[in-house]
Amino acid sequence: MRTMSDAAFALSCPVPLAGDETIQVAHGGGGRATERLLDTIFRPAFDGPELARRHDGARLDLSGPIAFTTDPYVVRPLVFPGGDIGTLAVNGTVNDLAMCGARPEFLSAGFILEEGLDTAFLGRIVASMRDAAGAAGVRIVTGDLKVVDRGKADGIFINTAGVGRIVAPRAVESQSVKPGDAVILSGDIGRHGIAVMAAREGFGFESAIESDCAPLTAPVMALFDAGIDVHCLRDLTRGGLAGGLVDVAETAGFAIAIEETAVAVRDDVAAA
Amino acid sequence: MRTMSDAAFALSCPVPLAGDETIQVAHGGGGRATERLLDTIFRPAFDGPELARRHDGARLDLSGPIAFTTDPYVVRPLVFPGGDIGTLAVNGTVNDLAMCGARPEFLSAGFILEEGLDTAFLGRIVASMRDAAGAAGVRIVTGDLKVVDRGKADGIFINTAGVGRIVAPRAVESQSVKPGDAVILSGDIGRHGIAVMAAREGFGFESAIESDCAPLTAPVMALFDAGIDVHCLRDLTRGGLAGGLVDVAETAGFAIAIEETAVAVRDDVAAA
Repeated sequence: MRTMSDAAFALSCPVPLAGDETIQVAHGGGGRATERLLDTIFRPAFDGPELARRHDGARLDLSGPIAFTTDPYVVRPLVFPGGDIGTLAVNGTVNDLAMCGARPEFLSAGFILEEGLDTAFLGRIVASMRDAAGAAGVRIVTGDLKVVDRGKADGIFINTAGVGRIVAPRAVESQSVKPGDAVILSGDIGRHGIAVMAAREGFGFESAIESDCAPLTAPVMALFDAGIDVHCLRDLTRGGLAGGLVDVAETAGFAIAIEETAVAVRDDVAAA
Repeated sequence: MRTMSDAAFALSCPVPLAGDETIQVAHGGGGRATERLLDTIFRPAFDGPELARRHDGARLDLSGPIAFTTDPYVVRPLVFPGGDIGTLAVNGTVNDLAMCGARPEFLSAGFILEEGLDTAFLGRIVASMRDAAGAAGVRIVTGDLKVVDRGKADGIFINTAGVGRIVAPRAVESQSVKPGDAVILSGDIGRHGIAVMAAREGFGFESAIESDCAPLTAPVMALFDAGIDVHCLRDLTRGGLAGGLVDVAETAGFAIAIEETAVAVRDDVAAA
């Protein structure tokens, strides 16, 4: 939130168009500069009937039960092999919805931008979000942005929230796990974490390791379409495989045994 | 998102409990330190059946049409006369839902915390959110947090998103405005902006001006309960009265005339 004095400034003295090359405090003031930024960067990317109404929120014809989730996204560097903060912010929330047994449908996006950020770079991140949303079959229907003073943020922070109709016939959660359940990994692990860390630290591996950041809607919906009785789903993020399993085991009240040799890790990831 | 190495560190070497007095990078790692923070600060405040399930999202029995909105909240100072960033983050999103003609019902909360933040202070902000949610009749049902390095944020950023069932019989939006409509202000203007600015700049006014940050659910629902045909609603935030009217006028395609003497501004606010 900007103060009234900022807003009044933005309304009466819009920054010159030349100043739009970098993000200014006035771009978060809710006045002319904000509208210009929305019209040039955000609305063209997230085009849709809800945003076109220019209201404080979106009207959705969505009937329950619904899943509702949110996550703030911060990552350094903002761009890494295989993705950027925009693809993360879309796919992370899409996947949290899928993990609830829901079909991801609508996302919101809240941006915190640091003064001085290159506007063209912001456009690139927003385009990544548009592409990721398209690939995941969701629409970004509402959002807002704030600008903080130089040095008060780390370029771009994005918070997405998501809603979607629950399609799973039973509760897909740790509490549904039963003795004898099998743990199935949908792929090899560790690629995203290593890709980001390598980009940040500049390790310069010979083979570039790319993040496997992607929407999991299709494989998850395929499980339900096939009538498979899924007990629990987890998208392995910060805590990795260990964190996800500990979380499920503690909530379910069971121990989970894993054969380490059965966990796929690519050679270059293991080496890193 | 933290890297895998951070997560592994958090899992195998939790920071000592004494270290929980301030926010550490490990508190955002998704491991033991994160769980401890959730268990001591967040879960007790936002107690409810959805959070108790410790899942990636909340299951809501909510049927459409629904309104969906989001806003990132940044404010300096984090505490000001009449409220703090927590009350703002709840009431701002509650009011955006009400402005859509919806009854605010469920909120999500995404936190970006700066390393070194005083944990007791965070607890105070979270308690403000709990109280504001209680007063507004909404529940905070899902959320997440990230920690960024010292100097990479401004203490606390909070992004809330909200959903609620639309109760208005017609679309409450700028496009519904018609020639002859009256503009009704529900109170005096400018208090929040001046309260925050005064707290930031330390103007030291003789009479303390308090923010009027509050949930607008009750007065808005009263309009619909009384069968009043509301065309458009706006919560005056960053752009103030001028910004709100310009926005409505441009979208509706009409000019709006305002008698300046009919706009209530408290003497101390006008003087400031």
